[in-house]
Amino acid sequence: MAQKPSIPKGTRDFSPLEMMRRQYIFDKIRDVFRTFGFGPLETPAMENLSTLLGKYGDEGDKLLFKILNSGDYAAGLNDEELRTASRICEKGLRYDLTVPFARYVVQHQSEIAFPFKRYQIQPVWRADRPQKGRYREFYQCDVDVIGTRSLLCEVELIQIVERVFRTLGINVSLKVNNRKILYGIAETIGHADKMIDITVAIDKLEKIGLEAVKAELTERGIGSDAIEKLQPILELTGDNERKLAVLRDVIGASAVGLEGISEMETIFGYVNRLGVELPIELDFSLARGLNYYTGAIFEVKALDFAIGSICGGGRYDDLTGIFGMPNMSGVGISFGADRIYDVMTGLGLFPADLGCAARVMFANLGEAEEHASLKLLQEVRAAGIPAEICPENGKMKKQMEYANRRGIPCVVIVGSRELEERVATIKDMTSGEQTQVPFTRLAEALR
Amino acid sequence: MAQKPSIPKGTRDFSPLEMMRRQYIFDKIRDVFRTFGFGPLETPAMENLSTLLGKYGDEGDKLLFKILNSGDYAAGLNDEELRTASRICEKGLRYDLTVPFARYVVQHQSEIAFPFKRYQIQPVWRADRPQKGRYREFYQCDVDVIGTRSLLCEVELIQIVERVFRTLGINVSLKVNNRKILYGIAETIGHADKMIDITVAIDKLEKIGLEAVKAELTERGIGSDAIEKLQPILELTGDNERKLAVLRDVIGASAVGLEGISEMETIFGYVNRLGVELPIELDFSLARGLNYYTGAIFEVKALDFAIGSICGGGRYDDLTGIFGMPNMSGVGISFGADRIYDVMTGLGLFPADLGCAARVMFANLGEAEEHASLKLLQEVRAAGIPAEICPENGKMKKQMEYANRRGIPCVVIVGSRELEERVATIKDMTSGEQTQVPFTRLAEALR
Repeated sequence: MAQKPSIPKGTRDFSPLEMMRRQYIFDKIRDVFRTFGFGPLETPAMENLSTLLGKYGDEGDKLLFKILNSGDYAAGLNDEELRTASRICEKGLRYDLTVPFARYVVQHQSEIAFPFKRYQIQPVWRADRPQKGRYREFYQCDVDVIGTRSLLCEVELIQIVERVFRTLGINVSLKVNNRKILYGIAETIGHADKMIDITVAIDKLEKIGLEAVKAELTERGIGSDAIEKLQPILELTGDNERKLAVLRDVIGASAVGLEGISEMETIFGYVNRLGVELPIELDFSLARGLNYYTGAIFEVKALDFAIGSICGGGRYDDLTGIFGMPNMSGVGISFGADRIYDVMTGLGLFPADLGCAARVMFANLGEAEEHASLKLLQEVRAAGIPAEICPENGKMKKQMEYANRRGIPCVVIVGSRELEERVATIKDMTSGEQTQVPFTRLAEALR
Repeated sequence: MAQKPSIPKGTRDFSPLEMMRRQYIFDKIRDVFRTFGFGPLETPAMENLSTLLGKYGDEGDKLLFKILNSGDYAAGLNDEELRTASRICEKGLRYDLTVPFARYVVQHQSEIAFPFKRYQIQPVWRADRPQKGRYREFYQCDVDVIGTRSLLCEVELIQIVERVFRTLGINVSLKVNNRKILYGIAETIGHADKMIDITVAIDKLEKIGLEAVKAELTERGIGSDAIEKLQPILELTGDNERKLAVLRDVIGASAVGLEGISEMETIFGYVNRLGVELPIELDFSLARGLNYYTGAIFEVKALDFAIGSICGGGRYDDLTGIFGMPNMSGVGISFGADRIYDVMTGLGLFPADLGCAARVMFANLGEAEEHASLKLLQEVRAAGIPAEICPENGKMKKQMEYANRRGIPCVVIVGSRELEERVATIKDMTSGEQTQVPFTRLAEALR
């Protein structure tokens, strides 16, 4: 009996319509990356497990897809060993693009001119529990500069964010913060050792509210004095300049904290001079999950559509250290293509003519008509217009239905009368309107 | 101690230079597919093993990369079961794009308007022994029409082949044959049951020569009388029309053979009328390995570079049958991106300016100079020119070296004198020549 075909849970097929929309997003993002001088990079889907393990925490390790060794994977192994994944699997699918990037930089350091500017648009795989909006295979679009501490790179990433979302037509706001400021705050309240606990808790401010965050801080061993000191910072309002000024008063005794403040002042200085058209908010409750960030951090949200962050990133000072190459500071952001797709679908932002593979279909009405149509089709395609001919000579109604189902906006009819008069009938499939043009002017008329 | 990073054998990193060249190939191929009205499709990297197993023969099954079940894969299994890959792995990486395509068509048949025209450009994985030019991860570029027997589709694929290689600048020849002719030949020499043996043997004609093929045929149980009957067909020369005419005399008693001849006459008729600029040779020794082909088959070779076939395909009458959807005839070809890359590298066919991510780099010469440069940089980028600024203010010599190492053809210098006069110095990094233009005309001058 034939198998009923399906795909693994958490994975997706992308139909031509979905693909054309996805490619539209990828192409726009890629264009912006290229305009800013970033070069493309691709790494293999499979990495050695030794490269991946231990980089994403215990939870991350569990979410790695492991690939069974090829050949006789069980040869010479006992029962116990067969129950140890690392004995039967040496490779895994990449979990993100950041660790492969770090691995690439270390492996190819002698060939690379630093600062190294790369972008990477590839799928990643996570054995997460699938749910709405969370997949086991999804694309990331990462852009990073590594090998310089220049804050111009942060500014450039902000410009990239502005330009990508302006190009796509999505209104967004950018939240920024700095891990050094977070450290400075922790240090000031006497809990420099608990920066991670504090940032994890205040990262939830928007989601669970001030009181719940305070409860969580208590639970994480932060005293009530310290929490009291923290409160004015969490409730700070006003523009970015004012926030930084107040903060300077509060955490001025922390050298690291001051450095973070000064970095943000520099970044805002550039941004103001260059006139980036993007609401940018300094938000001290922004922490971002990944612990490798050490400086500025970013998060982008859509203004007109409720969904999580659609882009985020930050500066990291030692991503390559784990592969034996210390002191390589870098900064990068990642665009979430799947969520951007959802936002654009939700807001109807895709161009209307994206959905059809061919803009023109020639009807197929008999041998002589087909010969003439094929010649014309060649001219239309030579003019760069995506076009096709119905491959079978069948009923006109059926051919029109076929064009409609495929979303083709325009059908060209060359019947016996047209053939005699050497004119083609162009039918607009939306309005139903028909016009006639001489064979010699068809390509031009369709353009 | 830090790990020494590496990647699994048979896989590759693609540097920005390699990627820009690969993208050039993919973009050109994709443009042609689009012009012919084919829509993009993507399927997941992982398929259920039940979808993949048994589709590529015993050898193919062994070459599938299997993915270990996530969670506790060993739970409840005994030693014997742990040694059975199918008990601990339910998913595998796709081996080609054809079987996932067939699976997609069957799974989504109610949403698809047939004939369904799709292209698919994605990596595939095979646990083959890696060697020069053979990788464990490589891209395929497939284009197929499914749901029609119209020979116009074959003609369209020939036009696509012509246009892709013309666009890429590669001189190629196209060999064609028809599986029905091969069956007709087998039937005529009294070995209809041995068509596969015969085609496998004669497929090697070019590689091992006539005598070795005859020896192999004998070994495969073909009698000497039959081999004698076969010989004139293998040695047939002349143009395609003459070959078909002679063949009609020899295998005229085979109905299937005659059908194959008639199909090829129809295809050549279209091709001659449309004037495809491509040497096309009917080659009865062309068989192609995959057994799902049932009609016309194709193979493309580069004329000026010694490498195997760089593109090939054919018609199949029952690809979807195995998934429970019989009688769906289709035809498709696949472009081998890796070999095309090798041909283009070998013949120096990539455009010279492909290799740089940025076309322009601004030097960074101090605070005031940097501010002016950043404004100008914004204008240059707004004009669509990929450009960047050296992120750190350092020695001019070092900045020039950086531009050179990255292959950036043009450096813009705004020093203190330029700033005063509001002119920028443009340095051509190839010739060393310097010119000056007013700030207001810089973007235009660089375009």
